[in-house]
Amino acid sequence: MNPQLEFFRGRQVLITGGLGFIGSTLAHRLLELGARVTLVDSLIPQYGGNLFNIADIRERVQVNISDVRDPYALRHLVGGQDVLFNLAGQTSHLDSMKDPQPDLEINCNAQLSILETCRHVNPTIRIVFASTRQIYGRPDYLPVDEQHPIRPVDVNGINKTAGEWYHLLYNTTYGIPCCVLRLTNTYGPRMRVKDARQTFLGIWLRRILEGQPIEVFGDGSQRRDFNYVDDVVAALLLAATSDRAIGQVYNLGGSEVVSLKELAALLVEASGSGRFELVPFAADLKKIDVGDYYGDYRKITAELGWQPQVALREGLQRSLAFYRQHHAQYWD
Amino acid sequence: MNPQLEFFRGRQVLITGGLGFIGSTLAHRLLELGARVTLVDSLIPQYGGNLFNIADIRERVQVNISDVRDPYALRHLVGGQDVLFNLAGQTSHLDSMKDPQPDLEINCNAQLSILETCRHVNPTIRIVFASTRQIYGRPDYLPVDEQHPIRPVDVNGINKTAGEWYHLLYNTTYGIPCCVLRLTNTYGPRMRVKDARQTFLGIWLRRILEGQPIEVFGDGSQRRDFNYVDDVVAALLLAATSDRAIGQVYNLGGSEVVSLKELAALLVEASGSGRFELVPFAADLKKIDVGDYYGDYRKITAELGWQPQVALREGLQRSLAFYRQHHAQYWD
Repeated sequence: MNPQLEFFRGRQVLITGGLGFIGSTLAHRLLELGARVTLVDSLIPQYGGNLFNIADIRERVQVNISDVRDPYALRHLVGGQDVLFNLAGQTSHLDSMKDPQPDLEINCNAQLSILETCRHVNPTIRIVFASTRQIYGRPDYLPVDEQHPIRPVDVNGINKTAGEWYHLLYNTTYGIPCCVLRLTNTYGPRMRVKDARQTFLGIWLRRILEGQPIEVFGDGSQRRDFNYVDDVVAALLLAATSDRAIGQVYNLGGSEVVSLKELAALLVEASGSGRFELVPFAADLKKIDVGDYYGDYRKITAELGWQPQVALREGLQRSLAFYRQHHAQYWD
Repeated sequence: MNPQLEFFRGRQVLITGGLGFIGSTLAHRLLELGARVTLVDSLIPQYGGNLFNIADIRERVQVNISDVRDPYALRHLVGGQDVLFNLAGQTSHLDSMKDPQPDLEINCNAQLSILETCRHVNPTIRIVFASTRQIYGRPDYLPVDEQHPIRPVDVNGINKTAGEWYHLLYNTTYGIPCCVLRLTNTYGPRMRVKDARQTFLGIWLRRILEGQPIEVFGDGSQRRDFNYVDDVVAALLLAATSDRAIGQVYNLGGSEVVSLKELAALLVEASGSGRFELVPFAADLKKIDVGDYYGDYRKITAELGWQPQVALREGLQRSLAFYRQHHAQYWD
């Protein structure tokens, strides 16, 4: 084990969005590292929270069902924590366009409320904020590094930008030790696969296992990168424990860049059955699609020593195995 | 008169923040141009709304006292309008740091609500949004053009950025014809001079007229540019009537760049009395000060034909004359 991760033994760690895909996977890892873990989650049905995600560790973590928009609950939860993994967020781009206020409330109002609470009751808490590559918009160049202009193409991207900037501002202004990770497409066990709300890859996994064809939008030539969830968890842990990370923004990214068509073919191959078909973009999706994207993650490699470890084929196989076994908990 | 401004004859025009400094000055001009003007303003005491600003035109405009955060009032007001000058905003940088939620609600939640209302009830309404040079943060180069990175240094700047981006997004996504102006320091009659909430120049005007010394923070060497309010009104009118402006962002800027010390000396000279003194920055102000700033406004000159007309000395004299006569309405 990376000796740096000894940090977590006996530490109090709070995870917002803790019943979600990444939050719950992080919770499992933190328990292995000896941390005392509190999970806060709203369990809003359209979002990623799912109690089954922590069924096997339910007795070993504190669970607080509340909305990050609730300032009183938050005040109670933030006190005494050593680390906050701030993963709660509205992630659906389409939802943010159909009804922008909930996205704004969760991705901005609640983030400011969390930071104000930390400032007033726990200003030395270490915070890692999960941002997104979506804020870059349509890339000017590839791979996209952290210097690329921020140019979001939907309400969700605008609000996530603000949320990220609040964190950096509270670092520079109040000295709250924050780090921002800009995640790319993350996939793996415990993700929401019921529909395409978190990522198209979720619904692809479901459809493959249901024997339905995967729908690839457009000509399938858009190139993307992907991170298996365990790799994202590793990055979150490094970001929380490296002093060098304080005040910094890091891209994550995948070592394999594939077109969506190639990804669909890989998934079919990994599952041993199924097929995909190209379908035209829906008008509302087309408007906010960013085309090719893949990230330059050399900064986090150089400064924190992070590298993705799980190959795409391997990650897809693990994901398929998980949902084959547990699909009843995710879409039935 | 610019024949383009014939556009306004008989048009329905809505101004949010209509009882404020710029909004009320714009209302006067629009009446001259033959428009039918509705002003919406919250009259929140800390902001810039002041019924005296429209005392001389009170019978010729519609006034609706309500908060732009109120979606029902807004829905009623937006219907049937040809143009919306969207000037309502929380403008105090310090207030945004002391208590960030009201700034967020007004500069983001309300802006999204306004845009959603336009989208649903009046998607062809022409919108001009008043943004701010503050979103550039500490300049990388001078003068700052519209390509300069956006890097706000306080909560207000982050939220104004989001507000601006929502407008551009609703233009590209829904075709609502929006234009964004990034204002620099605007001054003149009808501004809030009771305190430094809108700009330090307000409190300077008050102190000079009260026989108090002007306080210049730091060494007074920070260079800035200024626009007299009539010039800003002229830019707003051009932005609302030029098809070329749709979807565009324009800097405003002053033709004279002066240090704060020079400005203070100019104000003393213009008033015929008074003095200034250098005082150390308060810690909270220092943190969000951006140093030198002046804008490159060649884009709006080239595309819309706008140029500032009122020299700084002349503008200061007019402002002093206004407050000498009307100070009872602004700070007594």
